[in-house]
Amino acid sequence: MKNPLLVPELREMITNGDAEMLREFCEAGHPAVVAELVSALSAQEAWDVLRHAGLPLRAEIFSHLEGELQVEVISTLKRDEIARLITDMPPDDRADLFKRMPDDKLESVLPALAQAEREDIRRLAAYEEGTAGAVMTSDYATLVPGLTAIKAIERLRDVAPDKETIYYTYVVDEKRRLLGFVSLKDLIVAQRDTRIEDLMHREVIFACVSDDQEDVARKIQRYDLIALPVVNGGDALVGIITHDDAMDIMTQEQTEDMEKFMAIAGSHEAAAYVKTPAWGHFKNRVGWVIALALLGLVSGYIIQESKDLLFQFAILATFMPMLAATGGNTGSQSATLVVRALALKEISPRDVFRILTKELQVSVLLGLSLSIMAYGRAILFGWNSGTKEFYSLNRIGIAIAIALCLQVITATLIGAVLPLAAARLKLDPAVIASPVLASIVDITGLLIYFTTVNMLLVA
Amino acid sequence: MKNPLLVPELREMITNGDAEMLREFCEAGHPAVVAELVSALSAQEAWDVLRHAGLPLRAEIFSHLEGELQVEVISTLKRDEIARLITDMPPDDRADLFKRMPDDKLESVLPALAQAEREDIRRLAAYEEGTAGAVMTSDYATLVPGLTAIKAIERLRDVAPDKETIYYTYVVDEKRRLLGFVSLKDLIVAQRDTRIEDLMHREVIFACVSDDQEDVARKIQRYDLIALPVVNGGDALVGIITHDDAMDIMTQEQTEDMEKFMAIAGSHEAAAYVKTPAWGHFKNRVGWVIALALLGLVSGYIIQESKDLLFQFAILATFMPMLAATGGNTGSQSATLVVRALALKEISPRDVFRILTKELQVSVLLGLSLSIMAYGRAILFGWNSGTKEFYSLNRIGIAIAIALCLQVITATLIGAVLPLAAARLKLDPAVIASPVLASIVDITGLLIYFTTVNMLLVA
Repeated sequence: MKNPLLVPELREMITNGDAEMLREFCEAGHPAVVAELVSALSAQEAWDVLRHAGLPLRAEIFSHLEGELQVEVISTLKRDEIARLITDMPPDDRADLFKRMPDDKLESVLPALAQAEREDIRRLAAYEEGTAGAVMTSDYATLVPGLTAIKAIERLRDVAPDKETIYYTYVVDEKRRLLGFVSLKDLIVAQRDTRIEDLMHREVIFACVSDDQEDVARKIQRYDLIALPVVNGGDALVGIITHDDAMDIMTQEQTEDMEKFMAIAGSHEAAAYVKTPAWGHFKNRVGWVIALALLGLVSGYIIQESKDLLFQFAILATFMPMLAATGGNTGSQSATLVVRALALKEISPRDVFRILTKELQVSVLLGLSLSIMAYGRAILFGWNSGTKEFYSLNRIGIAIAIALCLQVITATLIGAVLPLAAARLKLDPAVIASPVLASIVDITGLLIYFTTVNMLLVA
Repeated sequence: MKNPLLVPELREMITNGDAEMLREFCEAGHPAVVAELVSALSAQEAWDVLRHAGLPLRAEIFSHLEGELQVEVISTLKRDEIARLITDMPPDDRADLFKRMPDDKLESVLPALAQAEREDIRRLAAYEEGTAGAVMTSDYATLVPGLTAIKAIERLRDVAPDKETIYYTYVVDEKRRLLGFVSLKDLIVAQRDTRIEDLMHREVIFACVSDDQEDVARKIQRYDLIALPVVNGGDALVGIITHDDAMDIMTQEQTEDMEKFMAIAGSHEAAAYVKTPAWGHFKNRVGWVIALALLGLVSGYIIQESKDLLFQFAILATFMPMLAATGGNTGSQSATLVVRALALKEISPRDVFRILTKELQVSVLLGLSLSIMAYGRAILFGWNSGTKEFYSLNRIGIAIAIALCLQVITATLIGAVLPLAAARLKLDPAVIASPVLASIVDITGLLIYFTTVNMLLVA
C-alpha cells in the first residue's frame, strides 16, 4: 500500500540531507507504517530515507515494502549494501526477495553473503510455491530437553533479537527431531529448576514442508497457535510458520477463491489490482470470457433449433431470460454454500448423499415458489402477448411453471454436485466457478424448457 | 465440527462409569480436538465426558464446542454447575454464550455468579454484533508505569493462568487510560531494574469499541500483532482482541462476502451449512431468487417488444444467450476485482477515475476480442440460420459485433462503478452481488442489442 501523506516533507528532508530527521522518521512509527509512507516515493528516494535507519530496523522496514519495490530498491544498491540489508531480513521474506530478483543481480549478491545465509536462502527458495516450506521462516528458537526453566529463559533472552518469536520454543534432540514445545508462559510460570523435558508439551501440532499453505493456515487458526513447527521428510524441524503469516496466507487464498469464482485467472499477489496494467488484467480475464461466450453459443443453437416453437408461442420468449437467470442464481447459491463448506472442512465429498438430500428439499421449495409466481405472471399478463384464449394460456402457464420448477431443481443439484465431484477428483472446487455453472445450467435449462413445452403444448 | 471417530469408545467409558479414563481422554489432546470428538455425542453424553475434566480445562474444552451444543449442554445442567463452568470460561466466549441462552435460563443462572462476572458478562454482551466491543475479551494483563521489569515479570507469572495472553501487556494510569504497551520479550530482554515507563512503546496501535470487527482484524494483520487493545469513548482500556479471534473474524467476513456475492441472505455462523435445516436454507435463498426472477421478466418484456425483429432475423436469437452471459461475466469480473480491492483497502471510492480508466481499457480489449469472434461465428455458421444472402449476413455480423462490444464495455464499467458507489454511500460493496449485476446487465445488454440492430439493419 502507498500513502502519499508525507511525500513533500520526506523529499525536502532528502534534498536537505537532514540525516537526523530521516532517522527519527524511520524510528517513530511502526515499520509497516513507515514502509507505506516510503512506498509513495521512487526507489532511489525510498532508499535515501531507509539508509538513515540503523540495522536491523532498516531491514525490517524494507521487508514491509511490496515485492516489486524491494527489487527496484535493490537494483539501485551496491553489492555490500545489499548483503548487509539481506543478512538482517527475516529468512522467509529474504527467500521471497531472491525468488523475485533478476538472475544476474542474484549471482552478484550471493558471494557477498555469509555461507550460512547463502545456504538458508537456497534451501527456503527451493520449496514449491504454495507449500508450508515456501512460507516458513528459519528464525526460530530451540531448546534441548535437559535444560532447566531458568537456563532456558536466559538462553531465549540471548537469542531473542534474532528470532521471529520466542513465545513458542521447540525442543529437539541431537538430530533436530521435534520432541515437544514449551511456551514462554510455561517457562515463566514454572519453578526455576524444572527441566524442559518435564515441562514440555509432547503432543505437538506440526506441519510437513510439502503441506498446502492453506491447510497450514487453517491449522494455526483451529488451534489458536502463535506459531506452527514445520518438519521435513526425516521428521527434523526445519522451520516455523507464524500467526501473522497465516493471516496473510488466508487473505491471499480468499482473493484467489473469489477470483476463481468469477472466472478470473492469473496471479494473486497483494496489491495486484492497482499494480497490474490493463493488458495484464485483459490477459487474466479474456480466456474465460471467450470460453464462456462459446458455451453461450450452445444455448443460442438450442434457441435457434426451437424457433418454430417460439414463433408459435411468443410468450415463451418472454420467460426465457427469467428461466436462465433463475437457474444460474439457484445453481450458484448451492455451489457457493458447498464450496465454502468444503473449504472450511465442514463437509467432505463423502457427504454427497446428505448434501443432495438437503439441496433437493431446498430446491423443491424454491422451485414451487417460483412456479407459482411464473404461472400467476403468465395468466395475469399473458393477454398482452397475443395468446388470448384462456384455455391455451392456462396450459402455457402450467408448462412454463413445470419447466421452471424442473430447471430450479436440476440447477441446484448440479450446483451442489459439481464442486463435490471436483473435490473428489482432487481439483479445486472453486474452479466450478459461478459463471461456468451459469453457462451450463443455461443449456440444461433451455433443453428442459423446450422439451417440457413441446410435450405439453405440441404433442 | 464433529468427529465421530471415538464415539463407541466414549460411550463405553460413559456406560462403565470409567472416570479415570474419561479424565485422561480430556487431558490427552488439544482442547479443540477433544471438543470435536465430544461434539459427535449427545449433549448429555458430552457433559458426561467433560465433567471428568478438572477446571479450568473443562471450561476450555466447553468453549471450543459450537454455540448450539453449548446451549444444549447448559440446558441439562444444574445452576451451580453452570456457574462454575461459566466462571472459568474466557470472557468473550462467555458473553457469546449468554447472548444465545434462553432468557429464563439466563435469569436463573445470573444470581449464582459472582458480582464481578455478572457485570463483565452484561458489559460485553451489550456491544453491538460486529463491533470490536462484541469480540474483545476482558482477560488481559495491565501494568503500572512505575514497576521494574523483574517485578512486572513476577506479576505476570501470578496472573498468567487467568489471562488470554501475557505476551502483550498494557500500561495504564489510575484512570485505566492507555499509556503504552510492553511485550514479554521486551521484559525478558530488559535489565532487571529498568522501569516500565522507560521500556514501554508509547505509540500504541489500538481500536475503539465501536470499530468494525473486520477493520480491527485487518489492523492486527497489517501490524503483525498478537493482540490489539480496545478503548472506550473515554480512552480507557476495556479489552483486547487476540490474533486467533482476528483469524476467526476474517473467515466469518469472507463467508459473508461470498454469500452476499451469490445473493444468499441470513446468518453466517460457523458450521452453518450442515446445521441449518432445509427450511432455513430456503428462507435465506428465496428472497433474492424471486427478486431476480422478477428482474428477469424485465428482460423478457424487452424481448417480447422486439419479437418482430427476432422473427425477421432469426440469427439474432441465436446470439442472445451469449450476449447476456458475456455481459454478466465481464461485469462480475470487474465487480469482483473492485470489491476485493476495496475490502483490502487497496483502493478507495475516491480512486473512481483511475479505476474507470483502467477498466475502460480492459473492456475495450475484451470487447474487441469478443466482437471478432462473434462476427466470425455469424459469417461462418450463419448460413444455417436462414439468412443466405452474404450482404445482409455481413451487416448482421457487424451489428452483432458492435452490440457485443458495447455490451462488454458498459457491463464492465457498471460492474466497477456499482461497488464504488455502494462504498461511497457507506453500503457494503458486496451487496452489488454478482447475480444482481448479471440481471442488470441482462437488461442493459438487450436494450443495447435491439437498439443497435434496429439502427443498423432496419432504419
